[in-house]
Amino acid sequence: MLDNQTDTPALRDEEGGVRPDFIEAVSEAIDGGNVQALRDLVGDLHEADLGAVIEAIEPDKRPRLVELLGIDFDFTALTEVDDTVREEILEELQPRTVAEGVRELEADDAVAILQDLPSEDRAEILDQLPVMERVALARSLEYPEASAGRRMQTDFIAVPHSWNVGRTIDYMRETAELPERFYEVYVVDDARKFVGAVPLDRLLRSKRPVPIADLMEDERPLIKADQEQEEVARLFQRYNWVAAPVLDTEGRLVGVITFDDVADVIQEEAEEVIKALGGVRPDEELSDRVWYIARSRFNWLLVNLATAFLASSVLGLFEEQLQQMVALAVLAPIVASQGGNATTQTMTVAVRALATRELVDANAKRVILRELLVGFLNGIAFAAITGVAAYVWFKVPGLGIVIGLAMICNLVAAALGGILIPLALHRMKLDPAVASSPFVTTVTDVVGFFSFLAIATVWFGLR
Amino acid sequence: MLDNQTDTPALRDEEGGVRPDFIEAVSEAIDGGNVQALRDLVGDLHEADLGAVIEAIEPDKRPRLVELLGIDFDFTALTEVDDTVREEILEELQPRTVAEGVRELEADDAVAILQDLPSEDRAEILDQLPVMERVALARSLEYPEASAGRRMQTDFIAVPHSWNVGRTIDYMRETAELPERFYEVYVVDDARKFVGAVPLDRLLRSKRPVPIADLMEDERPLIKADQEQEEVARLFQRYNWVAAPVLDTEGRLVGVITFDDVADVIQEEAEEVIKALGGVRPDEELSDRVWYIARSRFNWLLVNLATAFLASSVLGLFEEQLQQMVALAVLAPIVASQGGNATTQTMTVAVRALATRELVDANAKRVILRELLVGFLNGIAFAAITGVAAYVWFKVPGLGIVIGLAMICNLVAAALGGILIPLALHRMKLDPAVASSPFVTTVTDVVGFFSFLAIATVWFGLR
Repeated sequence: MLDNQTDTPALRDEEGGVRPDFIEAVSEAIDGGNVQALRDLVGDLHEADLGAVIEAIEPDKRPRLVELLGIDFDFTALTEVDDTVREEILEELQPRTVAEGVRELEADDAVAILQDLPSEDRAEILDQLPVMERVALARSLEYPEASAGRRMQTDFIAVPHSWNVGRTIDYMRETAELPERFYEVYVVDDARKFVGAVPLDRLLRSKRPVPIADLMEDERPLIKADQEQEEVARLFQRYNWVAAPVLDTEGRLVGVITFDDVADVIQEEAEEVIKALGGVRPDEELSDRVWYIARSRFNWLLVNLATAFLASSVLGLFEEQLQQMVALAVLAPIVASQGGNATTQTMTVAVRALATRELVDANAKRVILRELLVGFLNGIAFAAITGVAAYVWFKVPGLGIVIGLAMICNLVAAALGGILIPLALHRMKLDPAVASSPFVTTVTDVVGFFSFLAIATVWFGLR
Repeated sequence: MLDNQTDTPALRDEEGGVRPDFIEAVSEAIDGGNVQALRDLVGDLHEADLGAVIEAIEPDKRPRLVELLGIDFDFTALTEVDDTVREEILEELQPRTVAEGVRELEADDAVAILQDLPSEDRAEILDQLPVMERVALARSLEYPEASAGRRMQTDFIAVPHSWNVGRTIDYMRETAELPERFYEVYVVDDARKFVGAVPLDRLLRSKRPVPIADLMEDERPLIKADQEQEEVARLFQRYNWVAAPVLDTEGRLVGVITFDDVADVIQEEAEEVIKALGGVRPDEELSDRVWYIARSRFNWLLVNLATAFLASSVLGLFEEQLQQMVALAVLAPIVASQGGNATTQTMTVAVRALATRELVDANAKRVILRELLVGFLNGIAFAAITGVAAYVWFKVPGLGIVIGLAMICNLVAAALGGILIPLALHRMKLDPAVASSPFVTTVTDVVGFFSFLAIATVWFGLR
């Protein structure tokens, strides 16, 4: 195998990116229908690497790759690609091919592949599965989206509470059909209700006659199948769990969530916040089509256009003053822009701290006060700098004082808007990451323009 | 114990936030010097919960809590609080108290507590430790910041490659000093060089006479102690490792990194991107002092002020045209703002995809082209909307066409700037999350103002 690999180009460069020459070799093998070459290249790849290759090749070559590899294609790789990429591949494949591939997977991977399919296609694929697997998968798919039930795998080790360490280890040695990977053994009572969890290291440290029930970690918060995945991820992070049992409403063990699912949830959640703050829909992916992206970004820009017109209508109120002193028209955007940047800083901190539950009722007042003070201090600093610069530029006596006062007003407004709006949205059960930004920048645009021009009108006795 | 707990208020509310009444009870116990009450409240808390309590109480009560609890205080809790909070507490405590607390910890937790201390304080604490621990800790602290060596724990199980399953299990049963928690057993040769890793589930599934060397997972990429933690996190995520051995330059096993360290790294890395995009320094924390925050945000705002003046200087070039047609002064910020929002969308996607290595040389061209098309399509859409709105507002014939053309120019510039600037910064080995934003919004402000006013000057034959 090693001999083989010296001929094939390396998959990744030093930075961890997929190398173009590897992708070219794969593309050539697909175009030439060269199954042997394709197998040599990608047959032994880890699912994550195979997923990276699929994303890197041309869209029309992707289903062809799956077909050419046949039973050598590991469908787990499809859990590693963007949703759009997966859906486009699955559309092209025969339901039987998909069913055969999905059959080999653990429940969570199968759910990940099937959950976004149109319900007809999904039903067609489920129909091709053996009864047991069909029923289990259908049940997992009934849990709410983004719930523990969708993320869990349904393969786990559960032993009766009467067993001891020796019997448990013997059972694991003798049973062929164990989960591919496991980190804890679960203890259940006669009604299959969950009693406790035993980490493998505890099991290994203990002598054979020790009752398994003595090794259970007690008093861990329990996870329900319909619980939100973000909540589950927070528990995992807080208590450093490697795995956790998932229970149904009757307290029966139905699955297991593991640390790697949680890493994905943390990553996805952070990605959602990043995208939301940047005005990008959370489901936008690098492989999406131009039309889809243009439409989804359009909505956000339309909201912002409305707020931009609102802000400019404030400028419109002062048309005559702007005509009398055109320096005001030149300087007004500076006041607004400085407020916009300051409010973005505050909002970013607030949104992130709300998402991680660091910002809670207990410290909200302290944080509001702090932001207010920061806004006031930087307001004074930038009042001085901008005031001097404006005076030097236009040589109009008093202009520096006017823009300085406006700057203080706007940076205080920026601080208040940046913290209060996310807090209010959170209290109204709206996602502050998604909704805050247009509101807060409207505040600073409007306050920036209005304070600057109103103060100027009074100071210079305009109109 | 359960009886006790029914009297004390619950720590967390339904959302997972710390409850104010619990914090009040803790504060009262601290003020009253009531050790017993304090122990009842926080003595049995998980380190993460104790950390949350420490962050929630008043800053001056924090060192007092540590002192009152004495040997009952679990120093691991200090790894769960903001850096500033930790530093302020450690400053107040006696070096001996800290040394005694740190002694009980695993290497990675001890390093986390000691690494940010001033080197004098750190030396004073290290001096109080027994030789073995002092040397081990000092070595960990020598690895570069944010490297695998700083994150790893130095407690692990290593067995000779000649052992079999039975002997390995017996060893674990008989040895008292095992790591608190472990997920893999490592195999080393006679020179203590790393040979392979055996996950516990593989060990448990295998019969006692099986040679341990037969169970090793081979061909995993290896982690070096000086490797960057972000790189390590990407490997963990890609291959779903639960733990990974860390090797020194000679290939000797020096420590272990586990999934929970990786979850922290993923979280921190995402947090850095979120903050950088929002113009907040990555080390700013919710518990920082007003002065510190004001100063650190000031720098970012100063850069943005410079770019705002630059953009306004473009307006300044057209002072006479603005005076002749004041509608231009009112509408110009709309063109600039729409460009700013569009470029933020593109930049957000680019920065995130660069951080996760999804955007690489192999697909850069495709993504640039896609952004360009998205910018052009939305440029046309908003040209139409803004053009109609501007005409309806000011009733100036041709004004709609002028602002429409400017809008197309600026949204195309927004797309190009939003993708090319992060790519260029990344190629120059600069962090695109930190540096992109001032550049890209300067592009759209300048192009927005200039295109609108230049087109207007020509169209209306101004001046």
